[in-house]
Amino acid sequence: MTHHGTMLDAARRTSVLERLRAHRPSILHAIDPFKVKLDQAVEKARALEELGFPAVILASTDWEDFDAVVDRFIDEIRAATHDLPILLHFPPRLGYGMPMVGAADATMYPFLLGSTDPYFAWQSYAETVQCLTDDPRRRPAREILHLAALTFGTDQPSHEVMALEPIESTRVRAERLLEMIEILGLQGAYLFSRYEMVPPSVCRIFREQMPSDKILFASGGVREPERAHQFFDAGVDFVVFCGALERPDWRPVLEALAAGAPVAGIPAAPRTLAVAR
Amino acid sequence: MTHHGTMLDAARRTSVLERLRAHRPSILHAIDPFKVKLDQAVEKARALEELGFPAVILASTDWEDFDAVVDRFIDEIRAATHDLPILLHFPPRLGYGMPMVGAADATMYPFLLGSTDPYFAWQSYAETVQCLTDDPRRRPAREILHLAALTFGTDQPSHEVMALEPIESTRVRAERLLEMIEILGLQGAYLFSRYEMVPPSVCRIFREQMPSDKILFASGGVREPERAHQFFDAGVDFVVFCGALERPDWRPVLEALAAGAPVAGIPAAPRTLAVAR
Repeated sequence: MTHHGTMLDAARRTSVLERLRAHRPSILHAIDPFKVKLDQAVEKARALEELGFPAVILASTDWEDFDAVVDRFIDEIRAATHDLPILLHFPPRLGYGMPMVGAADATMYPFLLGSTDPYFAWQSYAETVQCLTDDPRRRPAREILHLAALTFGTDQPSHEVMALEPIESTRVRAERLLEMIEILGLQGAYLFSRYEMVPPSVCRIFREQMPSDKILFASGGVREPERAHQFFDAGVDFVVFCGALERPDWRPVLEALAAGAPVAGIPAAPRTLAVAR
Repeated sequence: MTHHGTMLDAARRTSVLERLRAHRPSILHAIDPFKVKLDQAVEKARALEELGFPAVILASTDWEDFDAVVDRFIDEIRAATHDLPILLHFPPRLGYGMPMVGAADATMYPFLLGSTDPYFAWQSYAETVQCLTDDPRRRPAREILHLAALTFGTDQPSHEVMALEPIESTRVRAERLLEMIEILGLQGAYLFSRYEMVPPSVCRIFREQMPSDKILFASGGVREPERAHQFFDAGVDFVVFCGALERPDWRPVLEALAAGAPVAGIPAAPRTLAVAR
C-alpha cells in the first residue's frame, strides 16, 4: 500500500483547478525546461508572479532524465516565488507512463483523443498508475487535471511522439470530441497548433458547449497580444504562450503580452464569457 | 514491484480474444454465480462444452464476497471440463475496482460509455490497477478484454448500480460510440437490453462499421432460437443468453438454443459476416 498519496488521490483534488476556474480569462506562460536555462526560467517565473499570472507551466513535447531536470526547476522556482502554482504538461511514454514530480502543484494530464494509438488517449493513465505504484521513488504531482489534448494542423513532431493526427476543424468533429469529454469526465480541453492557429471558430464551439466548470486552453503561435485577443474573443479561458519568450530580450515581449491580455493582476475590460450552463 | 503478472500484462494477452474471433458466429451462455447453485453451474458448463460452445461466462450485475464465491465456481467448472475457457463479466465498484479471480481465463472489462459517471466509462480501470497492486492477494484474470458495454431500453437495476442511461437506437449515436471504441482502442462491443431487445438495426451498424478484428456481443431476452437468429442475421458475433436456463428443466432449453444456433461444434449453414474491413 502506498501511503504517501496515490495518483487517484491526486486526481480527486481540485484546488489548482478551482484556482484556474477563478482566474479566467487569463494568459499563461509555459517554460520548456529542456530548452530554457534554469536561471532564466526562475527570472521568468518571478516576472509572471509580479504580473499577476495565476500559474506557471513547465511543458515540452520531449523530455529526458525528467526527474533530475524538472525537480531542480521546481525547487528553484518555488524558492524564488511566493505563491505561484507550478503545473506540469508533458506527454507520457510507453513503458514509463506520465513523468511527474511530487513537488509540482498539478500535472495537466493530456488525453490525446486525436491519437491513432489508444495509449495516448487513455491507456497511459493506467500504465502510469501501475508504474508509480511499482516504483516508490516516483510520486504523483499533488493534483492531476484531466484534459482532452487536441492538436490542429500538420504537426510532424507530435505525430512522431504521440501518433497524433490533426483534428478536423469542423463542428461535427468538435461535437463528437465534446461528447467524449463529457462521457470520460475530463475537466477541460487544451487546444494546440504547432505551426498554424487553432481555429477561433473551434474554440467558440468548445466554450459554448462545454459546461462552465470545464476549462478551455488554447496555445500555439501566440507572440503578440493580437493573437491572444483573438483567442479570448473566441471564449478561450487560458491563452498559453511558450516560444515567444525563448529569446534573450524576453522581458519586453512578456510585458507586451501581459499588458494586452487579461491577467489576474491587470484586469482587462469587463467581458462576458459565453458559457453553455 | 508485482512479479506475478499485472493487469497491464493481462491486457496485452489476446489468446481468449483470438479463440473468440476464430469461433464466430457462436452462441454463448452466461451463468450468474450469485443466483445459480454451484452443482448446477458445473453441470451446465459440462453441457456447454459437449455442445461445442467456445467458452462459458460467469456474469452478474450484483456481487458480494466475490472471490470466495467465484473462486469455487471456477475451480469446480475447471475440474469438470477439459478445455473450456472461463470468462468473467461483472461491473466494477467504487473503492474496489473490478472484481477478478486469477484462475479465470479472461475478464470482459466493460467500458460503460452510456454511464453518466465516468467511473464506469474508464476511471474504474485506473482504480482497479491501483487496487490490484495495493492488495497482493488480488490477482488479475489471465487476460482482459476491453469492451464497450452499452445498454438499451429502460433498465433501473443498471441505472442504480452503474448510473447507466439507455443508449438511443439511432445511427448518429451508434456512430459516435463507434468512434469512441476506435479512439479508446476497445476490442469490441457488448450490447445488452435487460427488458427489451437490442435493436437489430443497431447491431448491424456496429458489425458493419467496426473493423473485423473487433468482436460484437448481443444479449438480453434470448430464450428461443428465433431471438438468437435475429441477432445473428444482424451480424452479431456472439449471442449470449443467461436467464433462459435459470429453471430446473434447463437442459432441453439449452439443447434447443444450441441446435438452432451456430456453435463451434455444430456448424450452422454457411453465412457471410458483414464486416467493414
